[in-house]
Amino acid sequence: MSKNTRISSAVIKRLPRYRRYLNELRKKGVTKISSNELSALIGYTASQIRQDLNTFGGFGQQGYGYSVEGLYNEISAILGLDKEYKMVIVGSGNLGQAIANYTYYYKSGFKVMGLFDINPKLIGLKINDIKVYDFENIVDYVEDNHIDIGVICVTRDNAQEVADKLIFAGIKGIWNFTPIDIEVPDRIALENVHLSENLHTLAFQMNNMSSKESTINKQKTEVAAKAKKVK
Amino acid sequence: MSKNTRISSAVIKRLPRYRRYLNELRKKGVTKISSNELSALIGYTASQIRQDLNTFGGFGQQGYGYSVEGLYNEISAILGLDKEYKMVIVGSGNLGQAIANYTYYYKSGFKVMGLFDINPKLIGLKINDIKVYDFENIVDYVEDNHIDIGVICVTRDNAQEVADKLIFAGIKGIWNFTPIDIEVPDRIALENVHLSENLHTLAFQMNNMSSKESTINKQKTEVAAKAKKVK
Repeated sequence: MSKNTRISSAVIKRLPRYRRYLNELRKKGVTKISSNELSALIGYTASQIRQDLNTFGGFGQQGYGYSVEGLYNEISAILGLDKEYKMVIVGSGNLGQAIANYTYYYKSGFKVMGLFDINPKLIGLKINDIKVYDFENIVDYVEDNHIDIGVICVTRDNAQEVADKLIFAGIKGIWNFTPIDIEVPDRIALENVHLSENLHTLAFQMNNMSSKESTINKQKTEVAAKAKKVK
Repeated sequence: MSKNTRISSAVIKRLPRYRRYLNELRKKGVTKISSNELSALIGYTASQIRQDLNTFGGFGQQGYGYSVEGLYNEISAILGLDKEYKMVIVGSGNLGQAIANYTYYYKSGFKVMGLFDINPKLIGLKINDIKVYDFENIVDYVEDNHIDIGVICVTRDNAQEVADKLIFAGIKGIWNFTPIDIEVPDRIALENVHLSENLHTLAFQMNNMSSKESTINKQKTEVAAKAKKVK
């Protein structure tokens, strides 16, 4: 996969979104789609889409469009979604349970093997067929079951300690739901879901809707002008 | 707040992160901080930080740094976090409950007034002092209580219908946790938490750690080189 090294992180961030829309199209039986049609669906400009997809070979043909199935498979492979990942969730409260349900429901190669907690009332329970284990045994469990991803759903004060233990046990990636930035070595993949930052962006938007509207309208005009040029 | 209209959405996305770190510094009693020190903490380059903070007046003084409290208050005001927001959460399963806990715990002006569901087993319950109401009555509730934000934690098939009802009732912002893109009028603020996209980015990173490491090392070298130039 040496070609991936050329894909910028900005493009990578957009690939899951492309993939999600391509998946919807696949399910509807659509086989071909143009960059203009994709643009109308996804909201990026057609030229942005062509540029993004060109970075990894593309599959587009002039006047013909992209193969939906081909592009979907290619993006899935680039993201590494043609494999299966084993996950553990540390912290079995509502959020941990919600993540377990979520990945259970939208199963797409991410398998929750176990939930972990320090609360004796939770340890031993089964949630959606997923057992809650004692956090004391996390290192052995991760080693023995070759776990790839650790999901951290504990309180902020325990987040780094949990991460350290998961990394010690040999985890490759961490999905962090606590509001702090966890420190990890370079070899460990890390994604943060900072909900409060998201909420604050929403607050800003609500206080600036008039400027948002004018910005959006300006963008729409620019997009329309660009689309005309491209045609 | 006319000056806000000049702040780009890229800067806005970074403001909650600045605010989070400034809050930590405040709590530790730090009063002044330089862009270089902020850079070491947050991970953006010092020149990026100076550029970002300059867009709204800044508070920085050459050779002296930023006032932690002043900058924190300024960013809070820009984001609209000097006000209180009333929220309802639609969908009272694990995720809805987790969000209720989350905003309850990290109370920062976002008040969860009620949870809503269609499940008779949940309606009438209290979760952390927050009552679960019948979704049938959502429109009246939102109108009567002047609710600002609706959080959508239902299944994907019901997401748009729930959004439509919230908007009809007069909500100003929507925080969407379903994996679909909801359509809203321009006047409505919308933030999406697409967890699967986040998970897919993590998968990509795990498959490309060697290239990530080299990219990061390259960035570090660039940052170091830039820092030297700036000095």
